[in-house]
Amino acid sequence: MNDKLEKIVSLCKRRGFIFPGSEIYGGLANSWDYGPLGVELKKNIKDSWWDKFVNQRDDIVGIDAALLMNSKVWKASGHLDNFTDLLVECRKCHQRFKAEDLGYKKDEAGLFIIEAPGEISKCPNCGSDFGYVEPEKFNLLLQTFIGPVDPLNKIFALWLQFKKSDNHQDQTGKKAIVKKIDDLFSNIMDSLVFFRPETAQAMFVDFKNVLGTSRKTLPFGIAQIGKAFRNEITPGNFIFRTREFEQMEIEYFLEEKDWDKYFEYWREEIWEWITEDLGINKNHVHELEVPNNERAHYSKRTIDFEYDFPFGRKELYGLAYRGDFDLKNHYPEPPYQDKNGIKFYPHVVEPTWGVDRSVLAVLCDGYDESDPDRIVLKINPKLAPYKAAVFPLLANRPELIDKARGVYDNLKKEITPIAWDDRGNIGKRYYAQDEIGTPFCITADFQTLEDDTVTVRDRDTAKQERIAASELAAFLREKIK
Amino acid sequence: MNDKLEKIVSLCKRRGFIFPGSEIYGGLANSWDYGPLGVELKKNIKDSWWDKFVNQRDDIVGIDAALLMNSKVWKASGHLDNFTDLLVECRKCHQRFKAEDLGYKKDEAGLFIIEAPGEISKCPNCGSDFGYVEPEKFNLLLQTFIGPVDPLNKIFALWLQFKKSDNHQDQTGKKAIVKKIDDLFSNIMDSLVFFRPETAQAMFVDFKNVLGTSRKTLPFGIAQIGKAFRNEITPGNFIFRTREFEQMEIEYFLEEKDWDKYFEYWREEIWEWITEDLGINKNHVHELEVPNNERAHYSKRTIDFEYDFPFGRKELYGLAYRGDFDLKNHYPEPPYQDKNGIKFYPHVVEPTWGVDRSVLAVLCDGYDESDPDRIVLKINPKLAPYKAAVFPLLANRPELIDKARGVYDNLKKEITPIAWDDRGNIGKRYYAQDEIGTPFCITADFQTLEDDTVTVRDRDTAKQERIAASELAAFLREKIK
Repeated sequence: MNDKLEKIVSLCKRRGFIFPGSEIYGGLANSWDYGPLGVELKKNIKDSWWDKFVNQRDDIVGIDAALLMNSKVWKASGHLDNFTDLLVECRKCHQRFKAEDLGYKKDEAGLFIIEAPGEISKCPNCGSDFGYVEPEKFNLLLQTFIGPVDPLNKIFALWLQFKKSDNHQDQTGKKAIVKKIDDLFSNIMDSLVFFRPETAQAMFVDFKNVLGTSRKTLPFGIAQIGKAFRNEITPGNFIFRTREFEQMEIEYFLEEKDWDKYFEYWREEIWEWITEDLGINKNHVHELEVPNNERAHYSKRTIDFEYDFPFGRKELYGLAYRGDFDLKNHYPEPPYQDKNGIKFYPHVVEPTWGVDRSVLAVLCDGYDESDPDRIVLKINPKLAPYKAAVFPLLANRPELIDKARGVYDNLKKEITPIAWDDRGNIGKRYYAQDEIGTPFCITADFQTLEDDTVTVRDRDTAKQERIAASELAAFLREKIK
Repeated sequence: MNDKLEKIVSLCKRRGFIFPGSEIYGGLANSWDYGPLGVELKKNIKDSWWDKFVNQRDDIVGIDAALLMNSKVWKASGHLDNFTDLLVECRKCHQRFKAEDLGYKKDEAGLFIIEAPGEISKCPNCGSDFGYVEPEKFNLLLQTFIGPVDPLNKIFALWLQFKKSDNHQDQTGKKAIVKKIDDLFSNIMDSLVFFRPETAQAMFVDFKNVLGTSRKTLPFGIAQIGKAFRNEITPGNFIFRTREFEQMEIEYFLEEKDWDKYFEYWREEIWEWITEDLGINKNHVHELEVPNNERAHYSKRTIDFEYDFPFGRKELYGLAYRGDFDLKNHYPEPPYQDKNGIKFYPHVVEPTWGVDRSVLAVLCDGYDESDPDRIVLKINPKLAPYKAAVFPLLANRPELIDKARGVYDNLKKEITPIAWDDRGNIGKRYYAQDEIGTPFCITADFQTLEDDTVTVRDRDTAKQERIAASELAAFLREKIK
């Protein structure tokens, strides 16, 4: 792993931002758990986003849809066709071929081979005999079964019984079991469902319900924050690519003629979010205009926003003009009617933010070891897990501890979460708070006993100023907003 | 469906709280999507909980763990054994028997039959011949595969080829395929994973990581809000029982001697949450002391908190003393050491809150049609989707609209989200806001043009008072906190 990334992963584990998932059992394929500090950082990012793009605006409303949707959604959206591949690999030359190109027939959903070709026995590439090579499904969708009975298990039980009757030359029993297995496979789509591979489709599927209840007129958006799942073949780079991930997404509906205007508008909004809300250095983010031949066929324009991660320049956010492709996929009739009674399919500009990638970019951008004496997480104070930490100057003087505790208790009524630390010496406490990005450290010292002022140390400059304890909340509110 | 529940479901759909999931495709087995108002209500409940039980406290920290965990977690926790049943049903008398009681052998994980009995052919109940009856797995866990290749699909492709070689009497080909199928089944546990059926186990699995980074001492808690999944056989009653649901949960770790003290403490905290934070009438919630024979074997005491839902008195929250059962399951060595260096397994008191059930209880408790002229959602103002709505008195007077818009824009800088409505007449607007629980309706009228005062109408009393527009934010903040 890259040196800087390794340091960040180590800090995350050491300080309780992010732990390997299921670690005591050897982990699980690049899954990660957010710890006490990571969960606060992530929540602050999501709350800022929701506040900025939903609650502060009149033209965007939110939804939170189920993770499991009817499989017809993924047929209509094209995911069942495009996210799965049935491939046949030659055992000799290891070339892979699409099953349908070799004469295999798929079922209607495109998920199962229902007929093997009669003839194919030579590899189209090297000419060696294929023998019994079964197609393998490479499936980016995470699938599950709902309903009382697990078909996989049932097939297995039937298979055991089939082998037994085959051995016993029991033709009647064998026939009955063959029929059962065949029936099971042909009905399997009834209980097979998929975890959503993106949040976007829910906004299209719920479009009419949202429109009817919110009575918005174009342009307007539907926003969602939630998990999505992809059976990635090569998850990796810490929380950058994982099988379960969280998205923040807006589908912004508009008239076709306005698409480029709003595309530009959202481009600027994404930049504002990056620089002002996340507080990331704009020189570390780069636009990549996705060229014609790499864009989805329905998109007239797509921009990736790439961040300079320690492991390379990689996608952080995306902005795509999706036309009316999605609404047309889901609605046989135009789902929108303007004030003149004209019905049509709104077009869509879609800005998408990765939640976990936002967390990672904030951590990477804030990580600063330029001062040889300390590691500082210079993140936007608004996003910091703790807004402030309160200490007594000395850990062994009860009157200082009592005084500091009073400051802490009072401040906590106004601002949360804040940290308390009365262990070790003050240098170590500053060091620890710098490493977790706490923007202000407040210390009660001997002067506090006299005049109720405290020292406030700034994380980034390490400079201190004296402030009346009674003014702390106002001071912090001003600095953190 | 029950009459009152039907009215609430209808209001939720009509006003944008909750829609049927995947509705345009005929739905999906009692799944539900939170719409624009529902997502705000749910977020307000979750944020209140997190603020109260995590951010305001010194003794509880949060986590947010992956939904997919290593399967060994569910073996250790007992879920693989207790949440799945392999049953054989007699085709004649329909009596069901546990597969292992009839001589079937299960694999180590207890998920698959690996050997069918040699002899069993008579039903132990009615005596009729069993024939080829395969055990069926009733599995409350939602399972999926991770990794590049979908084994189910592969088995199906192999099965097709097997049948072909069987027909062709091709013994060598047949043997090869049998081996492939057998290998596939015996390796299937490697790619099979389960979506968590509860949030709790993550707090135990991450216990040492959280302890090591937060350096808390007993008693302390780990909190989590997140989704869990159960393949319920009979989901129903709107959002009461669904296959994916959200939990808010705390595992509160303590010394064994203190368990009953903290059990009582959390019992009171749950009551405070119900009455003060949710604002639910305490007469609608009832404690059910779970009797000995119905408690999990490791629990010395469990209380269910039941709410009088329209469909009956049903579980809303739970409080369980789990002893040291879970930590012992996951840690071969005691994971905690006290200040004297003594290592031991902490005990646990676990309060659990259902998120969706909280939403439903708030809706049911607030729903009020006692006034024949209106339906009012009398929910805690803090939880309401909109904190206030702002109108012009008349929809056709531009000077009133401008004035009201100014009030709206100013208020929005201080308090969000708030609603704007300038359609129809004011009676209809009050009606609509009452139905979605907006606690205050603010109207700019002709007097506003003179002296910058507005009327503020209280949702519950329908009484109005006049207030200076400049004092609105302070007035609302006081009422809503």
